[in-house]
Amino acid sequence: MVNCAVVGATGYTGIELIKILSAHPKVCLSALTTRQKEPISVKSLVPSLYGCDGFQVRNYSLTELKKAADLFFICLPHTEAAQTAYELRLAGKMVIDLSADFRLKNASLYPKWYGVKHHYPSLLKKAVYGSPEMNRAQIRKADLIANPGCYPTASILAIYPLIRKRLIDLSSIVIDAKSGVSGAGKKLTPATQFCEVAENFKAYKVNCHQHTPEIEQTLSGAASKKVMVTFVPHLLPVDRGILATIYMKTAKGATAAGVKKAFEEAYKNEPFVRVRKENHFPALRDVRGTNFCDVGFSFDSKTKRLIVISAIDNLLKGASGQAVQNMNIRLGFDETEALLPRAIK
Amino acid sequence: MVNCAVVGATGYTGIELIKILSAHPKVCLSALTTRQKEPISVKSLVPSLYGCDGFQVRNYSLTELKKAADLFFICLPHTEAAQTAYELRLAGKMVIDLSADFRLKNASLYPKWYGVKHHYPSLLKKAVYGSPEMNRAQIRKADLIANPGCYPTASILAIYPLIRKRLIDLSSIVIDAKSGVSGAGKKLTPATQFCEVAENFKAYKVNCHQHTPEIEQTLSGAASKKVMVTFVPHLLPVDRGILATIYMKTAKGATAAGVKKAFEEAYKNEPFVRVRKENHFPALRDVRGTNFCDVGFSFDSKTKRLIVISAIDNLLKGASGQAVQNMNIRLGFDETEALLPRAIK
Amino acid sequence: MVNCAVVGATGYTGIELIKILSAHPKVCLSALTTRQKEPISVKSLVPSLYGCDGFQVRNYSLTELKKAADLFFICLPHTEAAQTAYELRLAGKMVIDLSADFRLKNASLYPKWYGVKHHYPSLLKKAVYGSPEMNRAQIRKADLIANPGCYPTASILAIYPLIRKRLIDLSSIVIDAKSGVSGAGKKLTPATQFCEVAENFKAYKVNCHQHTPEIEQTLSGAASKKVMVTFVPHLLPVDRGILATIYMKTAKGATAAGVKKAFEEAYKNEPFVRVRKENHFPALRDVRGTNFCDVGFSFDSKTKRLIVISAIDNLLKGASGQAVQNMNIRLGFDETEALLPRAIK
Amino acid sequence: MVNCAVVGATGYTGIELIKILSAHPKVCLSALTTRQKEPISVKSLVPSLYGCDGFQVRNYSLTELKKAADLFFICLPHTEAAQTAYELRLAGKMVIDLSADFRLKNASLYPKWYGVKHHYPSLLKKAVYGSPEMNRAQIRKADLIANPGCYPTASILAIYPLIRKRLIDLSSIVIDAKSGVSGAGKKLTPATQFCEVAENFKAYKVNCHQHTPEIEQTLSGAASKKVMVTFVPHLLPVDRGILATIYMKTAKGATAAGVKKAFEEAYKNEPFVRVRKENHFPALRDVRGTNFCDVGFSFDSKTKRLIVISAIDNLLKGASGQAVQNMNIRLGFDETEALLPRAIK
Repeated sequence: MVNCAVVGATGYTGIELIKILSAHPKVCLSALTTRQKEPISVKSLVPSLYGCDGFQVRNYSLTELKKAADLFFICLPHTEAAQTAYELRLAGKMVIDLSADFRLKNASLYPKWYGVKHHYPSLLKKAVYGSPEMNRAQIRKADLIANPGCYPTASILAIYPLIRKRLIDLSSIVIDAKSGVSGAGKKLTPATQFCEVAENFKAYKVNCHQHTPEIEQTLSGAASKKVMVTFVPHLLPVDRGILATIYMKTAKGATAAGVKKAFEEAYKNEPFVRVRKENHFPALRDVRGTNFCDVGFSFDSKTKRLIVISAIDNLLKGASGQAVQNMNIRLGFDETEALLPRAIK
Repeated sequence: MVNCAVVGATGYTGIELIKILSAHPKVCLSALTTRQKEPISVKSLVPSLYGCDGFQVRNYSLTELKKAADLFFICLPHTEAAQTAYELRLAGKMVIDLSADFRLKNASLYPKWYGVKHHYPSLLKKAVYGSPEMNRAQIRKADLIANPGCYPTASILAIYPLIRKRLIDLSSIVIDAKSGVSGAGKKLTPATQFCEVAENFKAYKVNCHQHTPEIEQTLSGAASKKVMVTFVPHLLPVDRGILATIYMKTAKGATAAGVKKAFEEAYKNEPFVRVRKENHFPALRDVRGTNFCDVGFSFDSKTKRLIVISAIDNLLKGASGQAVQNMNIRLGFDETEALLPRAIK
Repeated sequence: MVNCAVVGATGYTGIELIKILSAHPKVCLSALTTRQKEPISVKSLVPSLYGCDGFQVRNYSLTELKKAADLFFICLPHTEAAQTAYELRLAGKMVIDLSADFRLKNASLYPKWYGVKHHYPSLLKKAVYGSPEMNRAQIRKADLIANPGCYPTASILAIYPLIRKRLIDLSSIVIDAKSGVSGAGKKLTPATQFCEVAENFKAYKVNCHQHTPEIEQTLSGAASKKVMVTFVPHLLPVDRGILATIYMKTAKGATAAGVKKAFEEAYKNEPFVRVRKENHFPALRDVRGTNFCDVGFSFDSKTKRLIVISAIDNLLKGASGQAVQNMNIRLGFDETEALLPRAIK
Repeated sequence: MVNCAVVGATGYTGIELIKILSAHPKVCLSALTTRQKEPISVKSLVPSLYGCDGFQVRNYSLTELKKAADLFFICLPHTEAAQTAYELRLAGKMVIDLSADFRLKNASLYPKWYGVKHHYPSLLKKAVYGSPEMNRAQIRKADLIANPGCYPTASILAIYPLIRKRLIDLSSIVIDAKSGVSGAGKKLTPATQFCEVAENFKAYKVNCHQHTPEIEQTLSGAASKKVMVTFVPHLLPVDRGILATIYMKTAKGATAAGVKKAFEEAYKNEPFVRVRKENHFPALRDVRGTNFCDVGFSFDSKTKRLIVISAIDNLLKGASGQAVQNMNIRLGFDETEALLPRAIK
């Protein structure tokens, strides 16, 4: 049994971690923290969860925190997470950070996209980007894992195998993404009020969403050259899920069969990426409540344009599920532990 | 490992059974049936489920069916279920029937409430009403379990402990119930179209819903005298869940403390009924995706009226979850097997 | 043309007033006010509205305000409205107050239900309760109209004709009401966040909602004796609309025909109350976007219980629509002006 | 007063026409037809509408129909509409057809996209495509108006001014469109059931939606050369509205200012197209219940890609509202009659 802590356990990703980890046979949830002064019972925070009567989310001092677990999931807001991660690493703890604070390799991008200077550039260099499909080997040895963003997860898994096989025109990538409201977090804003969201739909942060450089960095890595994308997120009137519709021009000589093969090779051994038959596409409900990323594609021979659609649950494969997947990899557990039911035989 | 079959596996309750049983460590799902001629892959039926690639829902002849399992969950429409149950009982099989066909002890009620004569009155007598909280001892030995209806489950669990303790005026019971759309099943009707349900709310079958006699029979049993209720169901723009708000006049001498005590005594050892503090009430989301029935109450001293609110997931505690609970009881398994995650310790 | 002002024009009821009054042929919207310092264009506040480019909602001093119009709709929060109404009445202006500040005749009820003492008890006495169906004659001459609350409107119109005809047991009234989220106003709260409301449903303020005394006062007036009700509001995952399901024991000798006659007599000349045939009930969508109150009923001869269901749009008949109806009455306009389309002939 | 008929009045577009036309001061709704044998009261069909007690939707023989009105709105399914239009034109009647039967100039496209041969090719030639912004002059004299499709309306209004000014690379157009469920019509299908749509989102008819050739034909007309587009529609969990996010590469020398100017010139006198400031985008709610098409744009200098977002109410500007706009133009009425409230002055 490994002692795990969730730092910042009252937000959506913290709650999902509590749900997943409370069913994990090899994990002891040894600490759940909040910056709020008054303790909160897990029972009141997650009413659908059973048997948590005596368990509380409470304020921890840094000293207390360092002793509270071996592995820490950090669910703090961007920029606050970095300092906590730094302190926990100093104390020799394993850290999986669900914020964006260790995702961008180039520290100079933080002021532009997150509005603040990065104070731990040397730690940033050591962080491993926690995309199991791309970086499993490094994750196995990583002590600081930067858990990917929700939009980047949906986008990258739909694109990187095509880049690796040089099947697409790198200047042609358009990502039209649609997310449920929980992606915005629990902070009270007019934009997330029921009467604003219901029966509504809109784009937001057009051309300026902070996940853009994360997507570009990862795709550039796969291409070994600079890749720029057009990325437009939209807000769906659903509580959870992301569906990304991605448009690309194919490279010379690319075929539907080649696309299919690229996806199949990339994902044939992946437990959480499911590739559909050509011209079959996932819906949000197919992945809701799961750690899957489902991918479908269509090749439009008329316009030589490739359409790839991916779907994830933004709170699972897009956040807490992937974080547990990373933990399972790091600790040498079965990668699907607590993330998959026993399958029908 | 016990071989189990789901007869009529393509509807909402069948799908929930597949989800629950595929994670049950002591069950082998040996047959999934449909009346449709073409087989359907479980994968296409339940896209969120993992590892079902080779498993199919298909048409079974009666002869095939009888050999296919030891215990059968019947998810057929009312009146069709009875004949299948009869045949399976002849073959000595255990049956849990999710239809209404064996719920009403008085066969003469079927023509009025279900529009047809009951053809198996002697089998009807042997059926045990599958409410674990009321009938656990009989369920342990039952070979034909009539799984309760969704509205009756929410209603009965909120009322019967009060009747047993003679705390309420039996002539005063009003049940105002609200259900998600999945309660209506998968049949295509104008009433269940998105554009009809969204941004809408309405009562239906006012004073004439077929669950009324089931509620009255069970409460009458608890009271040892005839109980009649006013029952009005409503349709909520949500996919799943039932919340029932129940109004009763208290009997002379009844107090809030007495009510609390009645609930606590009835449910202190029940794994799936959770009683709130006085004046604290459950919401649908508290039980969504769980097998819990949550109960809250308030005593209005001004009007001497007691208000009890109960909430369940109509597809789980109101159907498939309770069916599995009944199976666990019948087969001597841990009653919560496959219905609860490992709790936080 | 009458100059009208909306005081507190940025909330849901203010916006509805702007929409209705901008289409009213006899009204000039001469002032729209906000307590916010920066002006807000009507265009940005109500994007679906046409032709408002030059029109602004802005902060007015009291001196400015008094000169700005002849008739004022006050959409301020409870307790703040009273002072503004007082000042405007001092200046001789007509006032229609959409808050609760002049609804309860007994000033001593305010501390209990609204948490504050009432500072204008003499003005309170002069206010007319703006229920056109009950008080049309007084409204014609009223200079201060207390526009009814949303729940009271739906409740009262479903009950008072039965009380007048002595058809019901006054001690038996149970009101189970369900409201859309806009009823809670625009204030940011966790309870009105999309992720909290969607796929959810719950009761709130059980036995303690501040509309209870308003309902009781009005029904008591109709009965000429004290009436107490059990009132339980619930929150629906829809943006607008109220549906109330009301349960009553009938008085001796009451019949379904008598109930029907009571409703028909009360409402045969009412432009905005529509009575259904027995056993036919309204749905929220039937009244969404309209000023109608639809009423249906069913008589359960088994339990001698009468069920009445009423539906309104909480922002129209439950607030701004009724306020304009009251203005039309007060100013001698056609009562339906700006509230009904030209009918099919 | 002009006598107008709605042929096929029980579907969503028929109902919207009844709502709009019943408030039109210059129209008499002289006939509402259905293929169903039993008459349907307008009251039961459109409960939110007032004063229709005596008015019915009923079956008309062709002979009856020809005498029933001067102008006919045809809301029949594709391919059925053509024959009715043909008969009515033979009788000299004005026809506005809301189906696709007269939208595609090239009759040979019908077998591919609609699965049937077009039987009235000579009538097809005479039909005028009813886009007021592009074809107002021809609409004034047209006796057969092909009312545009919903997706084409949203798409074309966002693109054609840019094509006219040669601001975009014609091979680069990607239209990612999202529609509410009413776009699918009232036909019962599993895909439009509440439990399938709620909390869901998905693409459908990827690369093969029948509106593709309509969009291409119109844009090709604007460009005076063949234009092909990539068009992917998605299904939103809302009842009405379309939002289209459109991606285009700009032509050499194109600037944000040029784009802005192109839109402003095209729409400065248009009553129903509203152009936002650069980087400001419409939401579905901004146009819900209106005949507006709102357009916003952003120029991504990094990728030289232009993003245009348009929003309409699919049942109004995308169908019945635009049909009435066309009627107003054809009959010389104020173009906004019955489509706009009196504006704030």
